[in-house]
Amino acid sequence: MSTPLRLGIAGLGTVGTGVVRIVRQKAELLSRRAGRPVTISAVSARTRDRDRGVSLSGYAWEDDPVALARRDDVDVFVELMGGSDGPAKAATEAAIATGKDVVTANKAMLAHHGQALALAAEEAGRVIRFEAAVAGGIPVVKTLTEGLAANEITRVMGVMNGTCNYILTRMEATGQGYNALFEEADKLGYLEADPNLDVGGVDAGHKLALLAAIAFGCQVDFEGVTLEGIQDITLDDIHRAADMGYRIKLLGVAQMTGRGLEQRMSPCLVPAASPLGQLEGGTNMVVLEGDQVEQIVLRGPGAGMGPTASAVMADVMDIARGSRISTFGQPAARLDTCARAGTATPAPYYLRMALRDKPGALAKVATCLGEAGVSIDRMRQYRHEDTTAPVLIVTHKTNRDALDTALAGIRRLDVLAADPVALRIEAV
Amino acid sequence: MSTPLRLGIAGLGTVGTGVVRIVRQKAELLSRRAGRPVTISAVSARTRDRDRGVSLSGYAWEDDPVALARRDDVDVFVELMGGSDGPAKAATEAAIATGKDVVTANKAMLAHHGQALALAAEEAGRVIRFEAAVAGGIPVVKTLTEGLAANEITRVMGVMNGTCNYILTRMEATGQGYNALFEEADKLGYLEADPNLDVGGVDAGHKLALLAAIAFGCQVDFEGVTLEGIQDITLDDIHRAADMGYRIKLLGVAQMTGRGLEQRMSPCLVPAASPLGQLEGGTNMVVLEGDQVEQIVLRGPGAGMGPTASAVMADVMDIARGSRISTFGQPAARLDTCARAGTATPAPYYLRMALRDKPGALAKVATCLGEAGVSIDRMRQYRHEDTTAPVLIVTHKTNRDALDTALAGIRRLDVLAADPVALRIEAV
Repeated sequence: MSTPLRLGIAGLGTVGTGVVRIVRQKAELLSRRAGRPVTISAVSARTRDRDRGVSLSGYAWEDDPVALARRDDVDVFVELMGGSDGPAKAATEAAIATGKDVVTANKAMLAHHGQALALAAEEAGRVIRFEAAVAGGIPVVKTLTEGLAANEITRVMGVMNGTCNYILTRMEATGQGYNALFEEADKLGYLEADPNLDVGGVDAGHKLALLAAIAFGCQVDFEGVTLEGIQDITLDDIHRAADMGYRIKLLGVAQMTGRGLEQRMSPCLVPAASPLGQLEGGTNMVVLEGDQVEQIVLRGPGAGMGPTASAVMADVMDIARGSRISTFGQPAARLDTCARAGTATPAPYYLRMALRDKPGALAKVATCLGEAGVSIDRMRQYRHEDTTAPVLIVTHKTNRDALDTALAGIRRLDVLAADPVALRIEAV
Repeated sequence: MSTPLRLGIAGLGTVGTGVVRIVRQKAELLSRRAGRPVTISAVSARTRDRDRGVSLSGYAWEDDPVALARRDDVDVFVELMGGSDGPAKAATEAAIATGKDVVTANKAMLAHHGQALALAAEEAGRVIRFEAAVAGGIPVVKTLTEGLAANEITRVMGVMNGTCNYILTRMEATGQGYNALFEEADKLGYLEADPNLDVGGVDAGHKLALLAAIAFGCQVDFEGVTLEGIQDITLDDIHRAADMGYRIKLLGVAQMTGRGLEQRMSPCLVPAASPLGQLEGGTNMVVLEGDQVEQIVLRGPGAGMGPTASAVMADVMDIARGSRISTFGQPAARLDTCARAGTATPAPYYLRMALRDKPGALAKVATCLGEAGVSIDRMRQYRHEDTTAPVLIVTHKTNRDALDTALAGIRRLDVLAADPVALRIEAV
């Protein structure tokens, strides 16, 4: 096979520029490893005249990504524009319709339209690859789809938003509060244009939904992900968790339960001595558990030009080498519509409340928990701040439904000075 | 593609039994993911009448693995016998000669004959896959060959012998010496029949040589691996390393240098807070560094029925799905014969010596180091034990050649009560 594999690249931001750079600078290496040259036929971006620090000479220019996707001299459409709908989706559909394979880093598009796009691609005999959409440079899609292909996957977990982990670990290291670190992350350019995508867990939720589809053979169901962000985490929470041997992480967990597929993206307490607990800064980590392999942990950069371009190019190289794997590891038509389990698996929880300084307040809270069947492992009332008393409770293992019943009852009491915070303690 | 992929399995020990179990118990899952059934046509082992806890009904039996490899009803020859030569090699060659793909867990065979076998396979249009040969259940061969295919690999490191890491971490945890833990590992069945394969670093050295071939495009060169075992590590070494913030690991490192390919498997000091430093027990860890991806860390079980069978079956599934990748990631004929660099990259070293209690002994040692150009970062003489004084020296970054010159000079002095021990401090 010495026919070149010809790319059309739509989107020349950080990642697109990184991909162009690799193709230009590593032509010999890529050709040797792929058994054929990898070339670029055409590119497209919003702005043509911008210095991207890399030459685009020799490439045709298209203003319209859909026109790029339709070009006859493109074998693989590389979608690096982003956005769940609009031009990215239109161009991806055009690429498939005109017989191109697709490589994308677009987690939002696949989280919302992955099933439809995968079906269309398979009907057209084309492949869609998305390694760069999940956990940046870490080859987690490949590991799950191929490396663990003989495993019944039992659980997928991960810290997959570097910005959130940066904020949480910096809060602990610097003693600054959430708001200060949010602003710092913003200044450093770590936040998406809509910061809720990061701190609200949406971005990481997209990634979790994609991994869950592969792991459990379900159609991607981002709407089925229970999302909680890190906005309510305080420095006190972090310190109290640390006192108990835990650290707080925005953790995604997907597992199949008797009730259906459980997908959660929420701040959790994890043992400080575990690989997840030890994770610092913007680094990502994914934990894959299977019935044969026990546990595999993958750690690496979750963002950045080099790592993300590395993942895009891994997909390109696979296609160049002839890999024709299904988008989610099995034919899209065979993926199940899995029931949504909410939070089905029981766990202990960390509860933080601020109670009004009234006689019997704590007893009322304890009664609500007891009546819902939630038993208390530890409870501690801290020194009063003004007229409110901070209370920390760690429950024994409980169902989330029972806990929610208890919390609803607590909210109806006249003793709360603020809405309670409940963080799951995940066994990792 | 609904034609079944038919396996012939030679070797029904722990791993072979695990593979049979997966094929029998997960037929539906494998078929769905591979797009075709995976079946077993025939098996072979030394003893036929042994209860392996899994049925072999429906499979032809061959006493001779070469006859198995030649069968017409076998598409993939699965070699799980072990041994660098003898039946494993003969049967692998027979399989290739008769047009079969090969999946093997045999690191010794590939470390010694990988180049010749890869050439033969490629000439015959066949593939050889060996995920299970390196780091058990961790898909490190796949990650390096495919996931990082667009990277210039800069360094590969790993703790790839679980038995050694078990002994070293148990020494620290229990305060027992090397010999006691060696015996414990032996009783637990953790040691190879020839324990030097484990504690002498040979087994891990085989694995390193295989990864280095993929990473740097060199022909496998196990003879080029500098091997040191863990036999000389004392409890004192472990405690002194810990006092300085390090832990001792049997660490493999491969990197390309100006002098050629450097491959080392030796006990090293690594920062206690690093992922490698935190690794406990029999778990394996591989660190892959590339110019694009920065650093990827993979952690998982390095042995055991489930994990190793998972890796064997990942290769089988890749073949079932049509993957035809070259054995070492590029055509074997294009792999370079790389010069051997020995230990080319400089590093600080930890030196431990026992000096006779004579005036000026320490000064003589320091002079030898100074004359060889090795400068001392820290030096400490401990309380005398009998008539010898334990001395611990940490050098500044130095070339191994200079250190060896210094050590040769020190050995010629009349002040040594025992041979000095030198452990590299690796920046990980």
